[in-house]
Amino acid sequence: MERHFDVSLRELKEQLVGMAGLVERAIECATLGLVQRDRALMTQVHEIEKKINEAHIAVDDSCVKLLALQQPLAADLRLIVATIKINTDLERMGDQAVNIAGNATRYISAEPLKPLVDLPRMFEEVRVMVRETIDSFVRTDAQLAREVLRRDDLVDGLKNKIFRDVLEHVKINAGDIEQGLNLILIARNLERIGDHATNIAEDVIFAISGEDIRHSARIETIKQALT
Amino acid sequence: MERHFDVSLRELKEQLVGMAGLVERAIECATLGLVQRDRALMTQVHEIEKKINEAHIAVDDSCVKLLALQQPLAADLRLIVATIKINTDLERMGDQAVNIAGNATRYISAEPLKPLVDLPRMFEEVRVMVRETIDSFVRTDAQLAREVLRRDDLVDGLKNKIFRDVLEHVKINAGDIEQGLNLILIARNLERIGDHATNIAEDVIFAISGEDIRHSARIETIKQALT
Repeated sequence: MERHFDVSLRELKEQLVGMAGLVERAIECATLGLVQRDRALMTQVHEIEKKINEAHIAVDDSCVKLLALQQPLAADLRLIVATIKINTDLERMGDQAVNIAGNATRYISAEPLKPLVDLPRMFEEVRVMVRETIDSFVRTDAQLAREVLRRDDLVDGLKNKIFRDVLEHVKINAGDIEQGLNLILIARNLERIGDHATNIAEDVIFAISGEDIRHSARIETIKQALT
Repeated sequence: MERHFDVSLRELKEQLVGMAGLVERAIECATLGLVQRDRALMTQVHEIEKKINEAHIAVDDSCVKLLALQQPLAADLRLIVATIKINTDLERMGDQAVNIAGNATRYISAEPLKPLVDLPRMFEEVRVMVRETIDSFVRTDAQLAREVLRRDDLVDGLKNKIFRDVLEHVKINAGDIEQGLNLILIARNLERIGDHATNIAEDVIFAISGEDIRHSARIETIKQALT
């Protein structure tokens, strides 16, 4: 028989997964809005973000109630603490989707900058990262969470390439500077979403194994960035 | 007589304040490093960040232990949950200080872009925000935390002004595009530090009063950004 507490934990996970679905949808609308030059999709991002914010408060509220009423220990406690953190990262992914929508709205108000450099590929990589992060949480799959960490390097590499390509372009097309900057900022927003996915993956690993791998992984990333 | 638990909470607060001191120092080194064109200060940022990361893990660890061993309720529980979140934001401020140091290192490797636009003023505003945020936590001063929220608008305004000024400059000095982008990214990093300070201020208000003001304040900010 399922413990009453297990039911509560399952409900908490479902709440968080529902929120993650909204975040995925917000990112998708913002990026499709840019590619398809569709303002209606940008408006949708703001609508979805309101729901994300409501979910953010509701998830935190559930966590505090579970901590107060159930006084959980060990793995249950780690799961709730991880949920508090994952909740924060999901909400900030939503903020980044709003930022993308803002930069994309400015971008599509003017002439496009020939092809959208590697942005569509970066969208795709980030989308997979977000999806895998949520899956790793739902299936308590630490291995999948570790794959997310690896994928983040790819996303960072794409961002650097977009920066370089845009800079090369605007150096010889000074009139495109504002449009180039919009694309650079969108690449930066996507990179931040990847960072949040990485944070979530680290929290999933902590929740599952009790292992705090955060700065061991990060120090490696920093080292790579410096070489 | 002080409860044993009060001693533990006081120690937790001291731990967090110590970490906040490191974060302030990292931001200061990164920004001074840019203004004084001093690479040694940039190296120091990386050294301090290692200590921030250690503190990050230690604070989280203390929170989980306190939750498990003391099973706190009401205000005590809120304080610990708020500390978990504040800890995350402080650590990410440290990441932003590293990002500033990275962009600043690139910037000082080439010719400066005449004056550093309004960056020094933005440094100062962000520095005050960070300081006031920590003070509001230490003194459990919700009023001061609310002032931090207001100051964030000023920081966002400065970032927008820097974006505009740099764009105007590089439009007629196309050779300065890379340097201009470095300054824009630094302004963005500072804005993010301001956002983290805002998040902390919201958590301080929650810890003190149990009032979750997060999205009421944020919706206003978004509305303002759209006007």
